[in-house]
Amino acid sequence: MALGGNAILQSHQRGTAAEQQANVAATAAQIGELIETGWEVVITHGNGPQVGNILIQNEEAAGIVPPMPLDACGGQSQGLLGYFLQQALGNELRARGIRCQVGAMITQVIVAADDPAFVSPTKPIGPFFTRERAERLKEERGYVVAEVGSRGWRRVVPSPDPKAIVERDIILGLVQAGVVVVAAGGGGVPVIAGPGGGYRGVEAVIDKDLAGQQLARDVKATHFLILTDVERVMLDYGRPSQRPLDRLTVREAREHLAAGQFPPGSMGPKVEAAVRFVEAGGELCAITSLDKAVDALRGMAGTRVMAEENTDRREEPGL
Amino acid sequence: MALGGNAILQSHQRGTAAEQQANVAATAAQIGELIETGWEVVITHGNGPQVGNILIQNEEAAGIVPPMPLDACGGQSQGLLGYFLQQALGNELRARGIRCQVGAMITQVIVAADDPAFVSPTKPIGPFFTRERAERLKEERGYVVAEVGSRGWRRVVPSPDPKAIVERDIILGLVQAGVVVVAAGGGGVPVIAGPGGGYRGVEAVIDKDLAGQQLARDVKATHFLILTDVERVMLDYGRPSQRPLDRLTVREAREHLAAGQFPPGSMGPKVEAAVRFVEAGGELCAITSLDKAVDALRGMAGTRVMAEENTDRREEPGL
Repeated sequence: MALGGNAILQSHQRGTAAEQQANVAATAAQIGELIETGWEVVITHGNGPQVGNILIQNEEAAGIVPPMPLDACGGQSQGLLGYFLQQALGNELRARGIRCQVGAMITQVIVAADDPAFVSPTKPIGPFFTRERAERLKEERGYVVAEVGSRGWRRVVPSPDPKAIVERDIILGLVQAGVVVVAAGGGGVPVIAGPGGGYRGVEAVIDKDLAGQQLARDVKATHFLILTDVERVMLDYGRPSQRPLDRLTVREAREHLAAGQFPPGSMGPKVEAAVRFVEAGGELCAITSLDKAVDALRGMAGTRVMAEENTDRREEPGL
Repeated sequence: MALGGNAILQSHQRGTAAEQQANVAATAAQIGELIETGWEVVITHGNGPQVGNILIQNEEAAGIVPPMPLDACGGQSQGLLGYFLQQALGNELRARGIRCQVGAMITQVIVAADDPAFVSPTKPIGPFFTRERAERLKEERGYVVAEVGSRGWRRVVPSPDPKAIVERDIILGLVQAGVVVVAAGGGGVPVIAGPGGGYRGVEAVIDKDLAGQQLARDVKATHFLILTDVERVMLDYGRPSQRPLDRLTVREAREHLAAGQFPPGSMGPKVEAAVRFVEAGGELCAITSLDKAVDALRGMAGTRVMAEENTDRREEPGL
């Protein structure tokens, strides 16, 4: 399952540890219910607000402490949120009398050095700057900056496509041993293969749902849950004809994606992630809210993405 | 093996990511040599300068971003250094043609809620403050502060004794599966058991060598390497009679510890960690510098702590 940002921090909150840990405890209770029902669970999560705060802290202390590059900040956020989740989930499972270990793994995710995203960075991260400050950071640190809405300028970074998880075999081994694994947090730390075959971090952000589908495939998951702040995917979102979707075949999903039904920075990657998971052989991907996760797996909530419409099975031409 | 701070950051360096990653690459080369020689390796590491920098960043941005408590900062530092080590070691092993996975685990270490250290915090952490600022932090956040040398005031926190590693079974499973594990970074995130049986973080710092001996025992290590910035432990350190030690029996080590031969914040916990490891059945603990690690395991360098002096075996009275 890929936990959305709201599973850890609500948008109206400032982001204290107490707030985040209370949210994570509530999230852990939901996950505990799933596990008690018999599901084996592997978890990934977003890190937007947390890495955003780490970047602000880096900027504010830049005169005293060397700022860390984005890949290192991503590692930090994995440590922070891995700790929160590991502790809360462990406590939840112990309280339920479930003898099951929880382990958070630092995770590197490989991206292609020639991913087109590196040519045109689009993902805004970190603090807002004045135009002057943005220009200076562009010169001094080589940042790509862009005016974002009315609040000012921000750094924008590439959002390349995840290709593979470096720690895949370890994670799979843990899952097979019955461990509840937290991995690929924040989409994973993006790395590219160097000339000598080694990996090195790059300043980029991988979409956590796209990384999540890679993780789900790598651990041979049958089901993939994308948990967000809405119960269902909408067609014609924001228009009078807006309507929620109960089910989507991958074919329908691809058509809607091509028609621009789902916005790039938000529902788009979720539907794309769902489609990739099912196309790679996954049984079902459900996009829904955290509190509907159990119902969605029972077919009673969420938008369920499957290879074909079960109740209306048609033969494909040529098959 | 417990890596000392200098394996990641030299004391004259500012602490940029590039500096740390270059040091870690050199460290990884040494560890790679050990692994190529046939040793199975589990790694822990200090986090002093890194968590210190994170604390400074938290303070500098405190007006904008809620500062994280020390346990959460510890988790962050595990993510940061786990990422650096995991990447560098993975690259090193691939370059040597060794097919071996490297995995960094977020680790919680249990301490006793009634550990005497909580009554008298002694471990200085984070930035230096003026007396006024220190007084304010004492009032506003309940910090315990102390004047440290001539540079000003610092926060001091308890340094409780590690009792057990929450993720022990996972780490042991990974080691048995042949994974090179990085765990219990910075001594682990200290947690205490709550009334309901769950764990919660505490604002404290566990000595990384003491946590390291717990880790070594938990993974059933035969040998424990404590790597620091000197090649051997000294007797009468700083006096004219100062001399390096090649070997120490646990009995001799206990006598020297009781006689105050090894300073509390520095060599003391290392010798204590060595003694505990050997007393718990470990074959050998070597305290030495990183570049002598291979030689120390061959008996050609470092201070080797063992149950008894092999070349001069005496019967214990009553045995």
